[in-house]
Amino acid sequence: MSVSLDAVREPADVRRLPAAELPELARLVRGEILASVSKTGGHLASSLGAVELVIGLLRVFDPVRDRIVWDVGHQTYAWKILTGRRARMGTIRQLDGLSGFCNPEETPCDAFVTGHAGNALSVAEGMATARDLKGGDEQVVAVVGDAALANGLSLEALNYCGNLKGKLILVVNDNAMSISRNVGACARILGRLLTGVRYNRAKAVLERMGHRAHLTFLRGFYHRIERALKSMLLGNAFFESLGLRYIGPVDGHDIAALQQAFAVARADKRSVAVHVITRKGRGFAPAEADPTAWHGVGPFDPAHPERKPAAAPCWSEVFGDALVQTARADARICALTAAMRDGTGLAAFARAFPGRFFDVGICEEHLVAFAAGLAKAGMRPVVAVYSSFLQRAVDQVMHDVCLLKLPVVLAVDRAGCVGRDGRTHHGLFDISMLRGLPNLTICQPADADDLRRLLALALETGGPWVIRYPRGTAPAGGDRGEGTFAVGTARPLCGEGAKVQLWALGDQVPKALEVRRLLAERGIAAGVVDARFVKPFDAALLARQRAQGAFIVSLENGSAAGGFGEAIGADLRLGWPDVFIGHGTVAELERRHDFDAASLSARIISSHLTT
Amino acid sequence: MSVSLDAVREPADVRRLPAAELPELARLVRGEILASVSKTGGHLASSLGAVELVIGLLRVFDPVRDRIVWDVGHQTYAWKILTGRRARMGTIRQLDGLSGFCNPEETPCDAFVTGHAGNALSVAEGMATARDLKGGDEQVVAVVGDAALANGLSLEALNYCGNLKGKLILVVNDNAMSISRNVGACARILGRLLTGVRYNRAKAVLERMGHRAHLTFLRGFYHRIERALKSMLLGNAFFESLGLRYIGPVDGHDIAALQQAFAVARADKRSVAVHVITRKGRGFAPAEADPTAWHGVGPFDPAHPERKPAAAPCWSEVFGDALVQTARADARICALTAAMRDGTGLAAFARAFPGRFFDVGICEEHLVAFAAGLAKAGMRPVVAVYSSFLQRAVDQVMHDVCLLKLPVVLAVDRAGCVGRDGRTHHGLFDISMLRGLPNLTICQPADADDLRRLLALALETGGPWVIRYPRGTAPAGGDRGEGTFAVGTARPLCGEGAKVQLWALGDQVPKALEVRRLLAERGIAAGVVDARFVKPFDAALLARQRAQGAFIVSLENGSAAGGFGEAIGADLRLGWPDVFIGHGTVAELERRHDFDAASLSARIISSHLTT
Repeated sequence: MSVSLDAVREPADVRRLPAAELPELARLVRGEILASVSKTGGHLASSLGAVELVIGLLRVFDPVRDRIVWDVGHQTYAWKILTGRRARMGTIRQLDGLSGFCNPEETPCDAFVTGHAGNALSVAEGMATARDLKGGDEQVVAVVGDAALANGLSLEALNYCGNLKGKLILVVNDNAMSISRNVGACARILGRLLTGVRYNRAKAVLERMGHRAHLTFLRGFYHRIERALKSMLLGNAFFESLGLRYIGPVDGHDIAALQQAFAVARADKRSVAVHVITRKGRGFAPAEADPTAWHGVGPFDPAHPERKPAAAPCWSEVFGDALVQTARADARICALTAAMRDGTGLAAFARAFPGRFFDVGICEEHLVAFAAGLAKAGMRPVVAVYSSFLQRAVDQVMHDVCLLKLPVVLAVDRAGCVGRDGRTHHGLFDISMLRGLPNLTICQPADADDLRRLLALALETGGPWVIRYPRGTAPAGGDRGEGTFAVGTARPLCGEGAKVQLWALGDQVPKALEVRRLLAERGIAAGVVDARFVKPFDAALLARQRAQGAFIVSLENGSAAGGFGEAIGADLRLGWPDVFIGHGTVAELERRHDFDAASLSARIISSHLTT
Repeated sequence: MSVSLDAVREPADVRRLPAAELPELARLVRGEILASVSKTGGHLASSLGAVELVIGLLRVFDPVRDRIVWDVGHQTYAWKILTGRRARMGTIRQLDGLSGFCNPEETPCDAFVTGHAGNALSVAEGMATARDLKGGDEQVVAVVGDAALANGLSLEALNYCGNLKGKLILVVNDNAMSISRNVGACARILGRLLTGVRYNRAKAVLERMGHRAHLTFLRGFYHRIERALKSMLLGNAFFESLGLRYIGPVDGHDIAALQQAFAVARADKRSVAVHVITRKGRGFAPAEADPTAWHGVGPFDPAHPERKPAAAPCWSEVFGDALVQTARADARICALTAAMRDGTGLAAFARAFPGRFFDVGICEEHLVAFAAGLAKAGMRPVVAVYSSFLQRAVDQVMHDVCLLKLPVVLAVDRAGCVGRDGRTHHGLFDISMLRGLPNLTICQPADADDLRRLLALALETGGPWVIRYPRGTAPAGGDRGEGTFAVGTARPLCGEGAKVQLWALGDQVPKALEVRRLLAERGIAAGVVDARFVKPFDAALLARQRAQGAFIVSLENGSAAGGFGEAIGADLRLGWPDVFIGHGTVAELERRHDFDAASLSARIISSHLTT
């Protein structure tokens, strides 16, 4: 084999390679992904599954001229390698390195920003429409996974396809295991049939059959019959009914088949759906066997397929365990997730109470409205959802939960800076987006014990609650013998009466204690308050400290704009600044944005002295 | 005809009536709706279209025991009349009167809160699941219009139907004019066929055909063939493929047919979709002829079918006219709406530039992501959307627009208290939900001239913008000869140097001037600032006033929690309180919540004096 990745510097090099060398190219790219992710960590299984898909796309489309819009984007490591970013793969998800998702600021080959599932088709429809208004002729391609296709935004965009005047190509990357296992060979045959000459011949026959049926059988049902016949023979009437020509299923690991399908799609004047079957983790046995475990990983040793454990998502586990305990005593408690069972710590709940566990797929709006229906009918739903994905369901929180004061607990995971997943995934906006909603209680525990207590209090109190907590490890806490505590009360930890009072929210409490130590070194006495409640906050304690002339400093793992600090009217509001935060470790990002303890104490000193 | 509405006091009375009297009941109810809406104003066309549907549901289901979940809810006036609220129909949409939508706080017959399109199926799925977990046997019915069914939340819920273990009934209220005109008679025949004995006989024949095909034709495609054959003969494979038995189409103005269909649906153990064809405005010729104009109306004289004009939506018109002007000079400008072409003032744009006008239906997520795609590909999309419906697309504003700093202008209409539509429709949360997003400029004009200027400035500057304005009439303004003004600058109107400074946002400027007059009567001098920008606000002017020792009062038509006042750190933050605001005129609601000029001046005096 003569192909070498060193000779494939840009997309045109992929197009120039002899077809016979492409399988070897795929093998090399896969090795590169494994080598890179095993060192840096990252999204592995879905990227391994999309290698041939990427090569097929690059053989047929020009990524600079044409617009390839990836959905979600964590499957694009091969894309990165083959669009000029191979040398930087070692920096992926590192501070100032490559993003783990698509990013047009890295290269013109990335047509759009990705991270949240479901936007690609909608964005591609906008791009195709703009092209036609401007008289361009570039191809617009949306590449969407089967899970993202079930998201409401994707479905709205699918439903809109029929309204589009212009042409686009939808590539469905179907990696559901059940499908890839059962129809592999059949898919390949059908895929070839459909995209080849024989397809058009067969289609002509079918259309004549349709016409005959039209004349002799059921007048007026011609189009339905035509579609139905095609569906029977050719696989899928769904896309055709949406105004998309259907091509597929295509074996997503057969580059020749992919290239042929994309060429047919490219040549067609109509909009086309190409249905591609891939297998997550392809080419790395442990990931093929357990793609969920190998979805996102930390560094590991590829020579030893026993996987290195990723950092334990401890807040999530504390939450999940607490919910299992509570659910044993209360048959009304249900747990809900939008395709994040493991990430949100609900695996144990799902095993213990399968009848009360609901994974609705990547459908955050339905997630919250479904929970509202459960609650209105007497259940006690607890919705575990990442902060950045809850942004999809803000309206349902207002309209379906808060208006009727329904007992729905939103366990908002990954609240705050999440580190390496970067700007699409940080949970910095949940407080500002939700704080204006009436009837909603918002709180954040400082340690594992308080998370358990707040969950119990939320279920006991009823009404809509947000309990937010970050990614990462939860301090144990230690039973302070308080039992449950009252809604809207904070906990002064130390330094009562000091002229500087640090109101720290949740996971920022340890940092506040460190800031206090640093301030003490500079001769400034400060108190620390575990704020615990964003809404309602402890107005009585705040008024007392105000009356004592205290300088109030807030500290929260969220955007300062619209955040907790503004709610309490703090004199100095310490949170993440009003820019999109990149990727890196949390500690690196904190230093970058003057949000580490040393920077914070300096900011307090300069602000306090000038006030 | 012996039936009298006086004898129909509760749902059980509807069930007791002889079938022969039901058409007369429908006629009487229709008359009652007309009489009521012509006096109070309200939603007319859709409620007239759903009269027989309501009667059919009440004949088969018990609205207290069973759960009938209406989507949107503005079509439920007949429901209100026949579920014990007839005597209060004169109070509809009035202060302390009946809501114009469904409200469980009014009656146990209203199963859930409605207003925003698309939640009914999702909520019903939650209720059906809760019923099964609790071992109940009530029926759960979601009634969804065809427009609401295309919303992403509905589509997510439809897609989830197959996962439901329990049973529910989805009633699709299909009032698309094209359908109702073409298939009326056919629908009736098919509907009867499907719900009657003959359906099951025909179905058995088809299933045998399917089996035969299975054996002799294409092995493995049996289920697809069965579905396809049913689809050809019986109308709709779509719902069947989602795991719902399909019944329909049913003539939605034939009570006997409806009752029969609902009885079959009730008796079935599986989940069922009942497809009902209705005609908006049914029984009132002007509304049948132009259901859009008669969707929501002010008071009118039913004897004179020339319709009384509703109050002119003047801010919307100013916006729409300004956009047409701008679009003449810039071919990149597009206008987008989510099924609110007329309400958002875009009718003239749609006529002038049909190729650059996009109505995406009730799909707010797609609306914003589609605009992002247009913008990324070089167009200048302007999205006109009601504040309360933009809540559906907050994530797209963040992820698809703000992250890439795309030039998308969000023209946020109905921002602030909207009056009679009440709590689901007030636009009180857009500032708090959006203010935390980086790269977003947020502003609000005080008059028509400034709206034109801000729109021009937004398009000139680029980047993501929110221009918000309320329902109702826009003050003309008058050219102050300023040309365009700079981003982030406020305009001091009067009283510079006074020790109380009122920072009024947009439509609150005239009120602030009135408050100033009232304060002057009490011997307090106050200045008024037209704040204009929420983000970035005029920090320089604020610092200057602070340095002069001014007491800063903010005034905004939005929720005070998380609002503009908190952003500028006002000493007194005047906005709507942290409760859901009901319905009534804006003036009534302002008085109710101490938000009228007299109450505000009193609040300023007491707050200023105690500070």
